[in-house]
Amino acid sequence: MTLIVQKYGGTSVGTLERIRAVAERVSASRAQGNDVVVVVSAMAGETNRLLGLGKELSKRPSEREMDSLVATGEQVSAALLAIALSERGVPARSLVGHQTRIFTDGVYTKARIRTIDDAPFRSTINAGAVPVVAGFQGVDAEGNITTLGRGGSDTTGVAIAAALKADVCEIYTDVDGIFTTDPNICKEARKLDRITFEEMLELASLGAKVLQIRSVEIAMKYGIPIHLRSSFSDSQGTIVGAEDKSLESVVVTGVACDKNDVKVTMRELPDKPGIVARVFGSLADNNISVDMIIQTEPRGGKADLTFTVTHSDLARTKDVTERVAREIGAGEVKLHDDVAKVSIVGAGMRSHSGVAAKMFRMLADQKINIQAITTSEIRVSCLIDKKEADQAVRTLHNGFGLG
Amino acid sequence: MTLIVQKYGGTSVGTLERIRAVAERVSASRAQGNDVVVVVSAMAGETNRLLGLGKELSKRPSEREMDSLVATGEQVSAALLAIALSERGVPARSLVGHQTRIFTDGVYTKARIRTIDDAPFRSTINAGAVPVVAGFQGVDAEGNITTLGRGGSDTTGVAIAAALKADVCEIYTDVDGIFTTDPNICKEARKLDRITFEEMLELASLGAKVLQIRSVEIAMKYGIPIHLRSSFSDSQGTIVGAEDKSLESVVVTGVACDKNDVKVTMRELPDKPGIVARVFGSLADNNISVDMIIQTEPRGGKADLTFTVTHSDLARTKDVTERVAREIGAGEVKLHDDVAKVSIVGAGMRSHSGVAAKMFRMLADQKINIQAITTSEIRVSCLIDKKEADQAVRTLHNGFGLG
Repeated sequence: MTLIVQKYGGTSVGTLERIRAVAERVSASRAQGNDVVVVVSAMAGETNRLLGLGKELSKRPSEREMDSLVATGEQVSAALLAIALSERGVPARSLVGHQTRIFTDGVYTKARIRTIDDAPFRSTINAGAVPVVAGFQGVDAEGNITTLGRGGSDTTGVAIAAALKADVCEIYTDVDGIFTTDPNICKEARKLDRITFEEMLELASLGAKVLQIRSVEIAMKYGIPIHLRSSFSDSQGTIVGAEDKSLESVVVTGVACDKNDVKVTMRELPDKPGIVARVFGSLADNNISVDMIIQTEPRGGKADLTFTVTHSDLARTKDVTERVAREIGAGEVKLHDDVAKVSIVGAGMRSHSGVAAKMFRMLADQKINIQAITTSEIRVSCLIDKKEADQAVRTLHNGFGLG
Repeated sequence: MTLIVQKYGGTSVGTLERIRAVAERVSASRAQGNDVVVVVSAMAGETNRLLGLGKELSKRPSEREMDSLVATGEQVSAALLAIALSERGVPARSLVGHQTRIFTDGVYTKARIRTIDDAPFRSTINAGAVPVVAGFQGVDAEGNITTLGRGGSDTTGVAIAAALKADVCEIYTDVDGIFTTDPNICKEARKLDRITFEEMLELASLGAKVLQIRSVEIAMKYGIPIHLRSSFSDSQGTIVGAEDKSLESVVVTGVACDKNDVKVTMRELPDKPGIVARVFGSLADNNISVDMIIQTEPRGGKADLTFTVTHSDLARTKDVTERVAREIGAGEVKLHDDVAKVSIVGAGMRSHSGVAAKMFRMLADQKINIQAITTSEIRVSCLIDKKEADQAVRTLHNGFGLG
């Protein structure tokens, strides 16, 4: 018996008609002899509507309350899908956080899953019913409702697949798969049939927006293949899996572009040991992830520090850095969101040199200024002016022959 | 220290502006030195919107899923009010069913509360915060989400007040209190300053629609006064409390009218022992409450049976009665919803005779035909044609001098 976890995103359950279509797809998969566990996101637009209500009442609403507020979106779509399945003759039971016993840490709005009890799933399946899980949410040890951050339903799906040792986690969305770059920016973009976990991790973290990064980490850790595909067609999507040693790796698999970065510059930090650790320690204490870091050479005992954070952390970053700046006697703090991070990714970079230099040359030929660079084994990223981002993506996509 | 439970209905939290007004009211009550626990309904219209979604997917949606679906309405308003309170500087924490540990039986859509743990409320209050409870819901022993039926948030409020031995349960709504009859039907209707639990019970069960009947039962059992009042003004409402022995009771306190009854007629039942018990036993097994019952004299070994149920039980009543009719070899089953139940209520009826006769005379003078009659110690109800209901209410209200 094949066990499949199917996760449906917001557009896939965006209307009652779409929910009926999902019920049909689940029913068809069951008819093929598969055991199916379903995970759903909130109906498209619902999470933003709820966030909007909370933010209208308070500029800094309690994160605990915001989690309890937005978690209702998935609870609604899970109940509706369970009703639609029963209507098709497929017994189904919706499950929310405290019922699935998906226990998380207590970090509201971006909680991490600690444990999943497979019993509620097994007992539902053994009773002949389809568990329909409200994605994106869990409960902490005290029973508080937590959410896993934007796209967290992907993580719910993959984590459940790992806990149940499922054969595959199918992630249904409104695109046909992973593309070599964003087709909205570059019309030559091409769908990939396969991509490695590592490549996907780099792409996800770089703003390809297709899969939540943590879901890929969990899939890689537990060896669960992800089949990313469209719920609007029957065509095959992209398999995200382990590296296929028999094939020579492509040097560059894709080009990613992330426009959600904010560049933070702290002026005139005292050039003393421990100052930088103090800054990043305070950010870490507030669960703010820092990406690119540039530190200038100190002059006259003072140095400038520049780094990037994601846009959703902007308000808290401003608070934390201004407070730390006062405490350590640094100068002003400036935040700029007119930047973009353009990246090339490919497992083949491990065995090929000169890829980064080629990238810098291409951007220089277009007179695009590079403000910062970061690299990993299989990725090179450049921070550039946001206005030049689309041009850079097209240049790199064509330059590396991805069309 | 006075402990007040405040329950706010759907119109009282119907918009963000209204939620802010509620936060102000809670804040003011705290400023007067009271400890406050708040219970909220879903924002006006939300429960119907959610029910509509479920019913569009299935004519007979799973009740378990419908409960999980509609329970989100209160979860949303509780989180929003907690955010609004925090924004005003009043610490607050929203609590949903599994967090309040309001345990119910497993009868979906009309569950009954079994136990309430006061610890989550006490610990929140002791931490200086206002517990903001999602009304209308609980969890059963297996952690399934249950709801308490229409108006169930009243019951949540009073049950919490009883568990915490609160001084009063204030129930905020969009009317100024309890009236001698529905002001929409009879413009001479007058607000009552006080009403006894018993009278209120009769009025609530008769469709006065102001308070859920179970909330009054619980309030009476535990001696918790209810102050029913408007959240749109500061005026005093109606106190529902124990009978005041020092005052002579008014003979008739109010006139109620319920248009949600359905009259069920089962034809040609075999006139044998156990047949009627079989019918009502099957209805009870399906959690269908029967109100008025009329049995005709048997003729030729067959008798007709007529009774009333509430409109929300119509579909299930049809199923059950038709099945039972087949099994016992009875004739056809007919359901009519063109009836209304008009009642007079008053604690003074206990010591006054002739009140019922006076009522029948008044209706007869208006040529209103009485189809069935039921009485209690402090109430007389007549089933009449729905078209004549408003006329009957006005006649009785004036006839008993309530204007």
